[in-house]
Amino acid sequence: MKKINFASDNYAGVHPEVMKAILTANDGPAVAYGGDDITAAAIQQFKCHLGNHAEAFFVFNGTGANVSALCAMTQSHESVICAEKAHIQVDECGAPEKIVGCKLLLVPATQGKITVEGVRTQLQRIGDQHYVQARVISISQSTEYGTVYTLDELRELSDFAKAHGLYLHMDGARLANAAASLTINLKTIVEAAGVDVLSFGGTKNGMMMGEAVVFLNPLLAKSFLYTRKQNMQLASKMRFISAQFQALFSNDLWLNNARHANTMAQHMAQGLRKIKSIQITQPVDANAIFAIMPTALIEKLKTRYHFHVWDERLSEVRLMTSFDTKVEEIADFVSHATQ
Amino acid sequence: MKKINFASDNYAGVHPEVMKAILTANDGPAVAYGGDDITAAAIQQFKCHLGNHAEAFFVFNGTGANVSALCAMTQSHESVICAEKAHIQVDECGAPEKIVGCKLLLVPATQGKITVEGVRTQLQRIGDQHYVQARVISISQSTEYGTVYTLDELRELSDFAKAHGLYLHMDGARLANAAASLTINLKTIVEAAGVDVLSFGGTKNGMMMGEAVVFLNPLLAKSFLYTRKQNMQLASKMRFISAQFQALFSNDLWLNNARHANTMAQHMAQGLRKIKSIQITQPVDANAIFAIMPTALIEKLKTRYHFHVWDERLSEVRLMTSFDTKVEEIADFVSHATQ
Amino acid sequence: MKKINFASDNYAGVHPEVMKAILTANDGPAVAYGGDDITAAAIQQFKCHLGNHAEAFFVFNGTGANVSALCAMTQSHESVICAEKAHIQVDECGAPEKIVGCKLLLVPATQGKITVEGVRTQLQRIGDQHYVQARVISISQSTEYGTVYTLDELRELSDFAKAHGLYLHMDGARLANAAASLTINLKTIVEAAGVDVLSFGGTKNGMMMGEAVVFLNPLLAKSFLYTRKQNMQLASKMRFISAQFQALFSNDLWLNNARHANTMAQHMAQGLRKIKSIQITQPVDANAIFAIMPTALIEKLKTRYHFHVWDERLSEVRLMTSFDTKVEEIADFVSHATQ
Amino acid sequence: MKKINFASDNYAGVHPEVMKAILTANDGPAVAYGGDDITAAAIQQFKCHLGNHAEAFFVFNGTGANVSALCAMTQSHESVICAEKAHIQVDECGAPEKIVGCKLLLVPATQGKITVEGVRTQLQRIGDQHYVQARVISISQSTEYGTVYTLDELRELSDFAKAHGLYLHMDGARLANAAASLTINLKTIVEAAGVDVLSFGGTKNGMMMGEAVVFLNPLLAKSFLYTRKQNMQLASKMRFISAQFQALFSNDLWLNNARHANTMAQHMAQGLRKIKSIQITQPVDANAIFAIMPTALIEKLKTRYHFHVWDERLSEVRLMTSFDTKVEEIADFVSHATQ
Repeated sequence: MKKINFASDNYAGVHPEVMKAILTANDGPAVAYGGDDITAAAIQQFKCHLGNHAEAFFVFNGTGANVSALCAMTQSHESVICAEKAHIQVDECGAPEKIVGCKLLLVPATQGKITVEGVRTQLQRIGDQHYVQARVISISQSTEYGTVYTLDELRELSDFAKAHGLYLHMDGARLANAAASLTINLKTIVEAAGVDVLSFGGTKNGMMMGEAVVFLNPLLAKSFLYTRKQNMQLASKMRFISAQFQALFSNDLWLNNARHANTMAQHMAQGLRKIKSIQITQPVDANAIFAIMPTALIEKLKTRYHFHVWDERLSEVRLMTSFDTKVEEIADFVSHATQ
Repeated sequence: MKKINFASDNYAGVHPEVMKAILTANDGPAVAYGGDDITAAAIQQFKCHLGNHAEAFFVFNGTGANVSALCAMTQSHESVICAEKAHIQVDECGAPEKIVGCKLLLVPATQGKITVEGVRTQLQRIGDQHYVQARVISISQSTEYGTVYTLDELRELSDFAKAHGLYLHMDGARLANAAASLTINLKTIVEAAGVDVLSFGGTKNGMMMGEAVVFLNPLLAKSFLYTRKQNMQLASKMRFISAQFQALFSNDLWLNNARHANTMAQHMAQGLRKIKSIQITQPVDANAIFAIMPTALIEKLKTRYHFHVWDERLSEVRLMTSFDTKVEEIADFVSHATQ
Repeated sequence: MKKINFASDNYAGVHPEVMKAILTANDGPAVAYGGDDITAAAIQQFKCHLGNHAEAFFVFNGTGANVSALCAMTQSHESVICAEKAHIQVDECGAPEKIVGCKLLLVPATQGKITVEGVRTQLQRIGDQHYVQARVISISQSTEYGTVYTLDELRELSDFAKAHGLYLHMDGARLANAAASLTINLKTIVEAAGVDVLSFGGTKNGMMMGEAVVFLNPLLAKSFLYTRKQNMQLASKMRFISAQFQALFSNDLWLNNARHANTMAQHMAQGLRKIKSIQITQPVDANAIFAIMPTALIEKLKTRYHFHVWDERLSEVRLMTSFDTKVEEIADFVSHATQ
Repeated sequence: MKKINFASDNYAGVHPEVMKAILTANDGPAVAYGGDDITAAAIQQFKCHLGNHAEAFFVFNGTGANVSALCAMTQSHESVICAEKAHIQVDECGAPEKIVGCKLLLVPATQGKITVEGVRTQLQRIGDQHYVQARVISISQSTEYGTVYTLDELRELSDFAKAHGLYLHMDGARLANAAASLTINLKTIVEAAGVDVLSFGGTKNGMMMGEAVVFLNPLLAKSFLYTRKQNMQLASKMRFISAQFQALFSNDLWLNNARHANTMAQHMAQGLRKIKSIQITQPVDANAIFAIMPTALIEKLKTRYHFHVWDERLSEVRLMTSFDTKVEEIADFVSHATQ
């Protein structure tokens, strides 16, 4: 029997509407490297959602998006302030250090969110030639813990960034889930956060592959064409990424997919909360549930489901839902987790 | 009217069989990052074609394949000897320098092919701490000029490389076209050249996106998992790349696609050779034709066809065929080029 | 009036014996880039002190020594585990990230010393392609806090490193002070720690400029000639660095200088301990004193002495002694500190 | 017997006046990292010689100066156009590629000098994301062949650079020799060339070690303090480099040293021109003589003199003079080269 997936939203397949768009795009030859009409249209859709000044560049994956975004914002002697467990810190195999050459400065993050107080502790030694100079605050929305920054929390960080001459990078691999959670449109979120450069995720939300680096601060985009190419992120048959974004932005598919994943997470959380031996450890804002459960139970569930043990010492697991999670799969899991 | 494509084999779409494999792969969730069955099977197919010791890693694009391959072969103080117009020199926006940190040493290449005599001129100052130390010979098969190294030419380079402790990298973005041209299987070509690491192209031969870095020298693969990730080339939903390779290696699709493209190039060449004002400048071994033609003719043809002016001063153009070039398109071009 | 220096041992001048050696070395032309006799002799002296297998390479400064050493030990996807406040983390302006491309993983360090327990927490996700792979433990001896690892502490770290396949790097910018403190020779310290590569400091111990990267693990030295050059650390008139090391290793100057600095620190500590408003915060093992004192007193002393405020919030200062600190200067400081 | 040096001006020792300045600078403690008075004064002297807008930063060696200068002028996707045999291309062990990450584009250089015609051939594919974008022209004055650009030649390059939005870097490791040769002051040369950033050499002209990166375009200096530190070029006891520059700029020592070296080269050339079997191959503008001579003669002379065989196939040698070359040494060489 195939295991049921609660491991990650990137275990999911491709949404049928996205696949249909790919098939439709396969309509004979087209100009390579983004010179095609589909890419032009998809770029335009980003302007619709994020403002006319938004400039979107498509790349292959999340690492490519995050690292290339940081390349556009940071020189090697500058630093990026981020959460202790930010994806760019713990899941990119050191790509920011190798490719950007910069240092990440870490801030403890309760429930995955950093605060102005935390950032302030890393804002040190300005003008001291021996020390990396703070340049970027990078946050994930939604966070690695499935939580979502409120607009007020974003505004506070944004105000601080502006006041101290820092850029703001948003790792939006799951921005759609955050928008669905906040029931607020993308533009409002991005503006509240004063985002300079956004990594916008497609893969985890129903695409086959593809992310966008979106510049809200167009000055930073000046040489990004070259950065993308040099960072090995320029797709020759780019239309097949662009078409996926087109599908995502048609009929609110991006939102519906994210909303579904979030709803499934709520169902899961409700089910698990009724089980005494299980303790949910993070607010379930988006599409992840973190829970402590008995080791024996973990062992048992592992035979039937894909999911990650997040913290072995705590016996804490992460369960993720996605656009294709089924209600019955949630019920199945909850029922197997009961006793 | 949509222009007819002779610009590049990456203007082509996706072959229907490849697309079918993608659709089939979209069968619910699967383990991410290459832990899925399709990826395992595709890796196995590379072993079938290139030998059991061959270790294939899938990446997104040609730049990613070439640069990551060089990362595995070269330290920053070492050098890569390649043709003056090698793709890694003139079409990667300096990615090898930035990402590998190494220097490329250039060798003049008649008809795109380098020779032992050329390589020897760059084999200098061994042991001199002031000078980059030669480590890799990189060749393209087929070349940027649509020519194909013969087995004897490959063996000569291989012997030289072995004799001087150099690795051999083959940029095989169009290796299929070379194999079709030589009517020799992949393994024989790769062995003749004594290839240590191969960049094997999929995109230009009917795939949507995806290339493979294949290690024939397994020692060099030791830390490549990390290199691929750090180079932003690790696809989360990797099965959708792997499935394309599976399709390519089924029913000889890789060979048939390449053979078709080559045949179309032969047709084109035959047609153009009859036109007095046009002079074909390179042997047409694979799927590219280089030709000098009157500027006015170029201007006229540009309105109806996509193609690249290769050398403005010489009034030389490059015409490329691909798996989906149609006989009628060749006829159309030749007829419009005639008067 | 010139302020008295307690700011750093690199505010000190050049020891007269070192200067004499420089003058003596200025004896007409000599082969450049380390091909001279003085360099050969100085390299030999390192063998005398550290064992016949020790291979020393001279570089310009501490950043150059540390970063080049790490280049020899680490690939970009690997990590260096070090103290939270290690010099390579907080005082090299991100040079390890830019030049080596690797990530530093931080360990809390009471009194500047890391422990096996701390290192163990960073030994994570071995074999996980998404995460940097631990490769090096880097310690400073003496530490940034003027403390000195005991032989037992070193052995414990060494055993752990060997057991887990990690290299050990010692930042010995002040190794002489550690040796003087422990009254143990250099070889014993380095062997206890199982050092693979040592950054051996000259500048802070009476030289004008110059440090050595010393390989106790000769395999790691294989391409270091090129690394040094590429890292811009190859002195053309190298004999003038080598001569300084010769002087340092003659008549135990290295030890006497360090011993003097340490003794002065002891005097200072004794004096300050008698002052009620001052609290010494770290063991005074080598040539630094960390002390909390009233802000007003700091302000007053700043007008007469050079020294650094280490932690503004705590009102903690760092006082450093060096080979040329005078007993009267200590007395002067203590008397002025006694309001 | 010690061989006589015609190998390089960096085989020379330290000029007595420079050594005296070092001794004088050793006057007790002083603020580290360039915060001292001597450094301030030496920076001021650069303003005297090069204009009040000139901002000088001292570094350790020529590689450090050149590479750090390029770091300030170039992003990794940009290129540096230079002579085929420029020092940055053939004698820095690939440091520009590793540290700057950029590509060097080579221009043939008769007598070591590049021309506008040459540079123009490398000014390609502006705005093409696949290709490195030209950003800097780098020239050496005097050149690797001991020749010197005239003011008119410099102006032509400068005009071209300005017209095409390129920066101009001058590798002035031997700028003093060029100035002596042209009998023109430094400012006029630098202004004729429209230099944006100058690497100014001290080591080859009588210093022990030390070069300056001088910004004539102050915008480029904005973050150079950090670049210097990150590039491992920040001397802690910087005054000992600064003092050397002070000595060099006192009593025209820089000019007298260079003039002497040039004069010695003229003597040498005059002597060698009388020998039938020897053919001088380059104009002797500065302090180098390139000459073809019989292999047997080379072998003989090698036993008595240090010098480099420049081109083995041509049997061409390079002879360099320096500030400390003696008339008798020239006579000795010429006499031994005769018959």
